[in-house]
Amino acid sequence: MGQPPRRLRAGIVGGGRGAFIGAVHRIAAELDGQAQVVAGALSSHPEIARESAAAWFLERAYTSYEDMASSEAADRNGIDFVIIATPNDLHYPVARAFIAAGIHVICDKPLALTVAEGEELVRLVEAGTTLFALTHSYTGYPAVRQARQMVRGGQLGEIRRVMVEYTQDWLMEPLETRGNKQAAWRTDPARTGLSGCVGDIGTHAQNLLEFVTDRQIESVCADLSSFVASRRLDDDASMLLRLRGGAKGTLVCSQVACGEENRLSIRVYGSQAGLEWHQQDPNTLLYKPAGRPWERLRTGQSYLSGPAKVVTRLPAGHPEGYLEAFANLYRSFIEDVRRVEVGEAPVRDYPGVQDGLRGLRFIAQAVASSRGGSVWMNL
Amino acid sequence: MGQPPRRLRAGIVGGGRGAFIGAVHRIAAELDGQAQVVAGALSSHPEIARESAAAWFLERAYTSYEDMASSEAADRNGIDFVIIATPNDLHYPVARAFIAAGIHVICDKPLALTVAEGEELVRLVEAGTTLFALTHSYTGYPAVRQARQMVRGGQLGEIRRVMVEYTQDWLMEPLETRGNKQAAWRTDPARTGLSGCVGDIGTHAQNLLEFVTDRQIESVCADLSSFVASRRLDDDASMLLRLRGGAKGTLVCSQVACGEENRLSIRVYGSQAGLEWHQQDPNTLLYKPAGRPWERLRTGQSYLSGPAKVVTRLPAGHPEGYLEAFANLYRSFIEDVRRVEVGEAPVRDYPGVQDGLRGLRFIAQAVASSRGGSVWMNL
Amino acid sequence: MGQPPRRLRAGIVGGGRGAFIGAVHRIAAELDGQAQVVAGALSSHPEIARESAAAWFLERAYTSYEDMASSEAADRNGIDFVIIATPNDLHYPVARAFIAAGIHVICDKPLALTVAEGEELVRLVEAGTTLFALTHSYTGYPAVRQARQMVRGGQLGEIRRVMVEYTQDWLMEPLETRGNKQAAWRTDPARTGLSGCVGDIGTHAQNLLEFVTDRQIESVCADLSSFVASRRLDDDASMLLRLRGGAKGTLVCSQVACGEENRLSIRVYGSQAGLEWHQQDPNTLLYKPAGRPWERLRTGQSYLSGPAKVVTRLPAGHPEGYLEAFANLYRSFIEDVRRVEVGEAPVRDYPGVQDGLRGLRFIAQAVASSRGGSVWMNL
Amino acid sequence: MGQPPRRLRAGIVGGGRGAFIGAVHRIAAELDGQAQVVAGALSSHPEIARESAAAWFLERAYTSYEDMASSEAADRNGIDFVIIATPNDLHYPVARAFIAAGIHVICDKPLALTVAEGEELVRLVEAGTTLFALTHSYTGYPAVRQARQMVRGGQLGEIRRVMVEYTQDWLMEPLETRGNKQAAWRTDPARTGLSGCVGDIGTHAQNLLEFVTDRQIESVCADLSSFVASRRLDDDASMLLRLRGGAKGTLVCSQVACGEENRLSIRVYGSQAGLEWHQQDPNTLLYKPAGRPWERLRTGQSYLSGPAKVVTRLPAGHPEGYLEAFANLYRSFIEDVRRVEVGEAPVRDYPGVQDGLRGLRFIAQAVASSRGGSVWMNL
Repeated sequence: MGQPPRRLRAGIVGGGRGAFIGAVHRIAAELDGQAQVVAGALSSHPEIARESAAAWFLERAYTSYEDMASSEAADRNGIDFVIIATPNDLHYPVARAFIAAGIHVICDKPLALTVAEGEELVRLVEAGTTLFALTHSYTGYPAVRQARQMVRGGQLGEIRRVMVEYTQDWLMEPLETRGNKQAAWRTDPARTGLSGCVGDIGTHAQNLLEFVTDRQIESVCADLSSFVASRRLDDDASMLLRLRGGAKGTLVCSQVACGEENRLSIRVYGSQAGLEWHQQDPNTLLYKPAGRPWERLRTGQSYLSGPAKVVTRLPAGHPEGYLEAFANLYRSFIEDVRRVEVGEAPVRDYPGVQDGLRGLRFIAQAVASSRGGSVWMNL
Repeated sequence: MGQPPRRLRAGIVGGGRGAFIGAVHRIAAELDGQAQVVAGALSSHPEIARESAAAWFLERAYTSYEDMASSEAADRNGIDFVIIATPNDLHYPVARAFIAAGIHVICDKPLALTVAEGEELVRLVEAGTTLFALTHSYTGYPAVRQARQMVRGGQLGEIRRVMVEYTQDWLMEPLETRGNKQAAWRTDPARTGLSGCVGDIGTHAQNLLEFVTDRQIESVCADLSSFVASRRLDDDASMLLRLRGGAKGTLVCSQVACGEENRLSIRVYGSQAGLEWHQQDPNTLLYKPAGRPWERLRTGQSYLSGPAKVVTRLPAGHPEGYLEAFANLYRSFIEDVRRVEVGEAPVRDYPGVQDGLRGLRFIAQAVASSRGGSVWMNL
Repeated sequence: MGQPPRRLRAGIVGGGRGAFIGAVHRIAAELDGQAQVVAGALSSHPEIARESAAAWFLERAYTSYEDMASSEAADRNGIDFVIIATPNDLHYPVARAFIAAGIHVICDKPLALTVAEGEELVRLVEAGTTLFALTHSYTGYPAVRQARQMVRGGQLGEIRRVMVEYTQDWLMEPLETRGNKQAAWRTDPARTGLSGCVGDIGTHAQNLLEFVTDRQIESVCADLSSFVASRRLDDDASMLLRLRGGAKGTLVCSQVACGEENRLSIRVYGSQAGLEWHQQDPNTLLYKPAGRPWERLRTGQSYLSGPAKVVTRLPAGHPEGYLEAFANLYRSFIEDVRRVEVGEAPVRDYPGVQDGLRGLRFIAQAVASSRGGSVWMNL
Repeated sequence: MGQPPRRLRAGIVGGGRGAFIGAVHRIAAELDGQAQVVAGALSSHPEIARESAAAWFLERAYTSYEDMASSEAADRNGIDFVIIATPNDLHYPVARAFIAAGIHVICDKPLALTVAEGEELVRLVEAGTTLFALTHSYTGYPAVRQARQMVRGGQLGEIRRVMVEYTQDWLMEPLETRGNKQAAWRTDPARTGLSGCVGDIGTHAQNLLEFVTDRQIESVCADLSSFVASRRLDDDASMLLRLRGGAKGTLVCSQVACGEENRLSIRVYGSQAGLEWHQQDPNTLLYKPAGRPWERLRTGQSYLSGPAKVVTRLPAGHPEGYLEAFANLYRSFIEDVRRVEVGEAPVRDYPGVQDGLRGLRFIAQAVASSRGGSVWMNL
């Protein structure tokens, strides 16, 4: 790729004032100086949309994503890609609108409300030329990339047991009845889908597990709970897992785990070594070779693999965090946008629409398993 | 209790040369200077029995536990209690022999090979006057006692989610085919029972969970595995749990988790606080009150509860470990032996024969659940 | 402050291709979307300057900082502030040029080569109206802000003992003789000043200590070493410290501490509580109240003080790191630039020229103490 | 050494009811079943002496250590060795009495009140045949033995920097004025010697440093403090160190470090690797080879060196702690007592009278350095 001639132009739908994830997308998109958010439909409330756009110095503010899609597509200086940072129920229609307009899409997870919507998006993306990225941001961490490389390189031997966990406590009280907007839509089946906790964070755990192990979950035996009275969706789940190739394990997710902030972790045990990573201590990867001392691999070190190094910006010991991991997905996506613009084939080194569909199937089958009394369901 | 007039006399069955757990029992029994092992049937091999007895300076060495039971019972200076440190298949006959001889018993876990044997031991103990302790040693740690006190005192509120884990890696290779005696009997159904990993360490996890939460496991949905080819029993298991009172969670145990030494840990999440404890860092208990910083409770500190303090020997910062925890069970048991000798009622502040029976039922139902395709089984 | 009307325009001197700190400044300056780097004199090598400017999509590239200062000052759309990211020897002349041009300055540390240069910069800044910030970036961490608030609020009581450390290993080999440019100028007295390690990282430790404790170092008793043969400046130092108000302690810095990446940490012990913070685990602050359990304060939590919360962008458990801390200094500086532009008084909530002068005095006195055989020297 | 024919008989002076260290010595002496405490002069208060002796089931109780020395020496079934667990001022006279009686001595640290007393004990021990051990118990940890082996084996290369710390908080209030006996004698120059904190715990740090690095401290530059008003001796000290062979570093000790329990730690940095160990996490040794990941060496693992393995009783992951470390010194001492009894040469694999003298010199020179205004003093 030659010297890039200009910053790319991005637009954003959703994520206005009060929505934490909007600012995360903006920072991540712009962090490496390769793109700038210049247009947005930040809210369906005109005033919030206008104020939010002004606060971000956007050049063009919309109150309708349909207008935005058509206007930007018609503008020769229109946006190169759109960021979808809305509640879940809008992922599908917004994505469809921009795909139809021929604008590349990077979308928050989960992909859509239902498996059917997800399948439709797969068809649309595969039938067209627009790029599609899904921000399973935790796969952007260098240590996670390193873990995958080590599994792929055979350093763990045959994979036997996995343990993945994602626990939080922010929904341990019925915030949805107390005016908390985030809690309201995330616990509302109409806006968030079949599942609360499994959809919101369980899918991150599932995606991380499949990414690191390079293996798909074959079947799941789940027990979902709603510990907070009056809650309409699950806020906690435990699952037994079987992976293709014979590995087994557990997946735990909870949003009522008192005291936990954002405790996402994964452990993989093979016939020759184990691995362990904790998102809250993201720059360390524990490697446990059989019969030898644990090693503490650290991001920024020269002994790491290429795929881990390329997503590191700072020398070892200068902590990189969530925003940098998120920005790593944007970096790969932006590189693909540039490739496509000059007629090269995209590399797709980020979660895509198929990963999104897998997430939706995972949600559906976990819910079905639990409703069936914890029966094994295939994915 | 008045000034104790003498050290108690203990005997031991099993645990001779090469059996690590024998030395653990001896040290734990003698640590506080309240008892001394003076007699033993340390091995069925006469030479090993003799040498082992000499190495421990025993006054009386036997090659048959039946002889030992009858001789010691007949001797007015005979042993006050017997320690059973044999492989699992001998727990039942040895215990029966000493109960019949009227000698108090402290026995390694699991209680017996089968639920039927366990029920018989319950009957024998409850029909007689001999004391019976089962060395679920992990409940001897001060931090575990503290955890139970906090749950009982309501500091966690309503218990919602639990996670208990016990992982090791010592059986990740087929040691039973390579002359390792420990591995041989622990993977042999005839000597160890229905289950390998669940019986050996899963029961510790189950016991710890029930001890700390003060709640029983109501039902279990299990998936047992034998990852090492040719192994006859499970070496790994994952389980979904439901507890009486509505809490849910997971239990994981494995002896093929590469890199893990003896990673027993428990987490309990309630509506008001969470708790976390790791056996490999035993002097710390993490307490996570809702909306406030985590607190790091440490053994030896004056802010701990009475039941935690009473089992601590050293000032804070002077690590106590596995042997001290083990000795705490002995201390309570020995105090009971002294009570009974002077006609007082025993306090039974240690795991007993009923806990042993629960462990056997847990093994049986976990195995049954897994064989049935991970169906829920009641305990 | 009303709605900001535009992004500020920044220029940068130094920091071109191959200089890690240049990219750090750019990201930090732009992270919150309040400024954009549009002009630069990125290198004295014209080609590197041009290529670096193109890679960052700069609008205006210079090869001379003097030209840049005069041109930008003359341009009504010129830069609002300049970033100085050169080796130490250029801090003084570059700062002087931009101050003379009336352009606000944000400069890497240390302030200058000598105390005399530093004093001259203090005079220039205090005589004029340009803002001056020094990027002692570690004071930008939320947990560090929290620590200072707790000390100021009296939660530690009387401060007694402090321990501050900054260890690395990147200079444990004579890289300066092997073509490493960073190592070359950082070990060259002409370009880096009186001291190597104390100047480079010891000043960060000194600044962090004074920031957190809100107390100045009164005197220092130092022992500087050059462990790598042929090295012209110190690569390691140990110091005894006395602080105003009676506290005492130690400062250790080393660039030959094998295995350490960027281990900056501080501990403060008072008559009522202690505090501990580690830069490599930056989102946690340990609080140790007398007679009570340690508390683990975490960034993003609602129980933190206002000054800690205001520099946090993400919910708890989403790690923020070095770039975000660095950006926090920029945020405060940019807010001051906006204030000054509308005629308001600046708040100066970031290290300034006086802090830079203290750093230079600290370097000079540590070197003098060591040369004198570890005699106490006042600062 | 053939099969040992009997348990050794030990006596103890001091350590009666209320003195925590007495029970530690008893447990440590008896832990491996090779010795039993049978006689004692546990207190100069006859009632306490009697009650303490009864509580330990001692066969012979004395109220005078002189009586004990002469009686036991005259008894053919008298004690094989004596344990000295008194306050510091009695170490010298008690040791002298038992050495004169030809009874082996194991004594708590520091060796005596003054360098002169220490020199006299060196003369007496070297002139006679009695064995002498000093319980610098922290050198008994397996991980500490491993660290020394690695330094000796050259795995760290040339040693450059060391950092040793021992911090506590138990004297952060003036307990000596509030009826605390331990605090009273430990802060009283007549009973504890020239120094409080340096003598009590600084000497442990000094001994540990010299043990691990296999190098002596050459000179010290110290700053001692008494932070608690009215305290007569130091309760805190910071020191610069120079070691024979060119290494440098710091030693910090404090008994007013709020929140610290018994935080003894050591770090050693060489030209090829670093090491780090923390007494409160004693079963882990961090090894930091240049350019490679840190390794986490764990006691009980087969990859450790012989000297580390031989002092480990349990499989990896079964924590051993302070009592086991203490018992390791006793084990070596007892083996020497057995050797001497059968005419073999002792191995002296434990701290001895010369180490005690070094500790006294360290105390004296640290105090002298501080009084002189932090001047370098040679040891």
